[in-house]
Amino acid sequence: HIIWICDLKTCRPNNADLVLPSRAPRKHVLPFIEGMNGVPHRGKVLTVDNMNPNVKRVEYAVRGPIVQRAVQIEKELKEGVKKPFTEVIKANIGDAHAMGQKPITFLRQVLALCSYPELLNDNKFPEDAKNRAQRILQACGGHSIGAYSASQGIECIRQDVSRYIEKRDGGIPSNPDNIFLSAGASDAITTMLKLQVSGEGRNRTGVMIPIPQYPLYSAALADLGGIQINYYLDEDRCWALDVTELRRAVTAARQHCNPRVLCIINPGNPTGQVQSRQCIEDVIRFAKEEHLFLMADEVYQDNVYAEGCKFHSFKKVLFEMGPEYSSTVEMASFHSTSKCYMGECGFRGGYMEVINLDPEVKAQLIKLVSVRLCPPVTGQALLDLVVNPPQPDEPSYTTFIKERTAVLAALAEKARLTEEVFNTVPGIRCNPVQGAMYTFPCITLPQKAISQAKEKGLAPDMFYCMKLLEEMGICLVPGSGFGQREGTHHFRMTILPPTEKLKIMLDKIREFHQKFTQEFS
Amino acid sequence: HIIWICDLKTCRPNNADLVLPSRAPRKHVLPFIEGMNGVPHRGKVLTVDNMNPNVKRVEYAVRGPIVQRAVQIEKELKEGVKKPFTEVIKANIGDAHAMGQKPITFLRQVLALCSYPELLNDNKFPEDAKNRAQRILQACGGHSIGAYSASQGIECIRQDVSRYIEKRDGGIPSNPDNIFLSAGASDAITTMLKLQVSGEGRNRTGVMIPIPQYPLYSAALADLGGIQINYYLDEDRCWALDVTELRRAVTAARQHCNPRVLCIINPGNPTGQVQSRQCIEDVIRFAKEEHLFLMADEVYQDNVYAEGCKFHSFKKVLFEMGPEYSSTVEMASFHSTSKCYMGECGFRGGYMEVINLDPEVKAQLIKLVSVRLCPPVTGQALLDLVVNPPQPDEPSYTTFIKERTAVLAALAEKARLTEEVFNTVPGIRCNPVQGAMYTFPCITLPQKAISQAKEKGLAPDMFYCMKLLEEMGICLVPGSGFGQREGTHHFRMTILPPTEKLKIMLDKIREFHQKFTQEFS
Repeated sequence: HIIWICDLKTCRPNNADLVLPSRAPRKHVLPFIEGMNGVPHRGKVLTVDNMNPNVKRVEYAVRGPIVQRAVQIEKELKEGVKKPFTEVIKANIGDAHAMGQKPITFLRQVLALCSYPELLNDNKFPEDAKNRAQRILQACGGHSIGAYSASQGIECIRQDVSRYIEKRDGGIPSNPDNIFLSAGASDAITTMLKLQVSGEGRNRTGVMIPIPQYPLYSAALADLGGIQINYYLDEDRCWALDVTELRRAVTAARQHCNPRVLCIINPGNPTGQVQSRQCIEDVIRFAKEEHLFLMADEVYQDNVYAEGCKFHSFKKVLFEMGPEYSSTVEMASFHSTSKCYMGECGFRGGYMEVINLDPEVKAQLIKLVSVRLCPPVTGQALLDLVVNPPQPDEPSYTTFIKERTAVLAALAEKARLTEEVFNTVPGIRCNPVQGAMYTFPCITLPQKAISQAKEKGLAPDMFYCMKLLEEMGICLVPGSGFGQREGTHHFRMTILPPTEKLKIMLDKIREFHQKFTQEFS
Repeated sequence: HIIWICDLKTCRPNNADLVLPSRAPRKHVLPFIEGMNGVPHRGKVLTVDNMNPNVKRVEYAVRGPIVQRAVQIEKELKEGVKKPFTEVIKANIGDAHAMGQKPITFLRQVLALCSYPELLNDNKFPEDAKNRAQRILQACGGHSIGAYSASQGIECIRQDVSRYIEKRDGGIPSNPDNIFLSAGASDAITTMLKLQVSGEGRNRTGVMIPIPQYPLYSAALADLGGIQINYYLDEDRCWALDVTELRRAVTAARQHCNPRVLCIINPGNPTGQVQSRQCIEDVIRFAKEEHLFLMADEVYQDNVYAEGCKFHSFKKVLFEMGPEYSSTVEMASFHSTSKCYMGECGFRGGYMEVINLDPEVKAQLIKLVSVRLCPPVTGQALLDLVVNPPQPDEPSYTTFIKERTAVLAALAEKARLTEEVFNTVPGIRCNPVQGAMYTFPCITLPQKAISQAKEKGLAPDMFYCMKLLEEMGICLVPGSGFGQREGTHHFRMTILPPTEKLKIMLDKIREFHQKFTQEFS
């Protein structure tokens, strides 16, 4: 027998004994096939029809279909397939080193010393690098970074993190017992969300997230079966967060779930805004009034470029609002070694500080993280260097400052350039990139393009980005992967490519946008 | 007002206006307190009463209360508190470097080169180490281990893993597309379990795990809300796995859930047995008959010591059973850089190979792992060296083989020693440590000790281990943390301490056991 299992819209089987539409559930298809060959065929144990339904709901656009296609195109280029471009520029993910940013010498020297302590006898390494390495090794089991650490993270590194936070926040105390080291910020954010999600039906935990958001949040909530509550950032006011909108969102959500968590991303991802001190105060007051747990994603705290903008940590503002707030509002703040001037994504380093967490819940959190044994120790070591960098009287100081300043100055320049160029293109409107590493411009798409996208079952901005990739070799992420107001369209682009390449990319996008607009007008 | 919230059994408040038992749910206690001071007090947003109930059910004995007490005792010793011992020996966790095992030179040289590529110009490093480092860096974004890798892991490392598996299994093909690199084996095991768990009530996924088990399994199932199905290993036959027992367990479980997964740990943790080829065949046949997905935890595949014992991979046996099995039975096998001769736990390296996984499920798996971006890249690099070690014609070969052999020979000697000493102690009965890194002896406890433990609300072997810790400074994990037949008692001890220390530890346990038996007889 010849059996075709296919999409009946696009495929016209002409030699089949039996045709089954591919959208039919397997449980209907399989008995059919079994019946035909007479052999009892039970099919797979694990199928998309019977697997964890929460996992199916997970989506993560930053590494979604468009990136998979980009990888494929790269392979085709290597194999000699002719394209209208010679390389794919990937501006889909905040991956600084992949875009050519060089690692900071001091960080890598210490990591090499920790990996192969024989090098401590090598006089090529500066003394401060050796001291840092020795201090880290002293704190490791058997003086090896190959030993498991405590599940919460190496104690002396947690102490260094606390000191760093105290300094950052002008002396407001930080307790190392409240610091949890993690495998990047994603790990800690997921863990904190996991603690929160409970209840059934109208009692199910609701989590407020910004729209546009970084899709880790929606993905983790889908996985955990938590209820996502959208609050919209105000694009017309440079993606400002408005408490009126928070109130609208929480009030509406109370009809169908139990809102319990408020997530903030500042500086914003994908939106690049930096929140004002006033805004943060308003948010904290709102969280207290509405009895919400605050989760402050502050991984871009050192990526602030715009004049007049300054990073204010939620913790500092909370404590400056007085004991009425600082002793009651529950909060977790997240940081990472993957961004800022380091861009060390591959090491998976990060930390979370918890404030006012119920001690019994904290005990549960410690128990939960212990199951996975410990965060990667090299990532912990790297974090230690970030929170305890070379001091003015140490030999590595000058080079360190020079390298750090160069990275941050280049990012600031690229932030400015990106805004400037995009705002000269009719049909692209772009807020200033005040901080973080992304721009999220609004693009005007012709109605004909929107209709054609819908025919293909694609979001209009996915249709746009796919075409941009195929024609120009530029890989961006469509706004629909982050969420946006109904009827608007965006893309997220990182500002990470080297300036010369960024300029080429911006020109190409301009050219493409004009062509696209003409083609569909 | 003076309010006491306390355990009424152990505490006698004499000056309270109000006494509330500490076991009372907070929702009952809080309104009471609020009523008294007249201030509306809403309490914490996140409490143990309203948090994720699955997380509360998670238990992980390997880092449980006994280890927390051990850490406390270490601090007390440092502060000068007098104890009947001068140091705590921690034999609770398979953490080789913490127990003094030295890292393998070649591995660490390559990691240092990857961390700080300037060292490639240094003629102190052997050529093969440099070549490995260059090859890894070539495969990284921007030639930096600080870039994110593909979520499934760096492609050339997955190819190396496949070649390693093919060689291990006598040429049976392995496809790099079926390899997923992970943050240790725990990460991949949890992910695979997450894919599996679905359904409600009697349709809820059931997962068969050995008893005794490594508590990652019970912890992950509690977290995911999957149904744990216990099958018991046969202690009298050196912890053999008996298909009759598997059948009993699956049949009983079908009354209340949907058994879909069978987990095997070979070599065994905590039990140290190595399964025969015949046993593995029987298990595979059983899995096919009962339509179960096999999860083979093979992280101790290079830790086999006993004469006549040999590691047989589930994959090899599956393929040798012919296409009826090799083309149908779905399987995942797990490996790690944390054990064997490396013991590099802190790097969180590992991989999973999937066999016969439904392509659509595999697409879901790729999507799921992409949310967490990538496994730690240093762990991936380390794994690459493990699967692609120095070859006989390379300069590092001799040292590498010498170091590896020394580690494995010492482990074999300690495995033998442990069994020998324990079996001379009346009341301790110990199977041979055929493989892995643990012994799980059965201990006879006097009835009086059992009663006293129960009075304190402790499992009898927890009572025993706590006393051993307090009196001797030895930290083991009670058998109750792994599961055991009702009425039997055990502990898990690693064989990792250096031989001289291990001898002292075994003597101390002998002494303690005799004293304990006398005290409670």
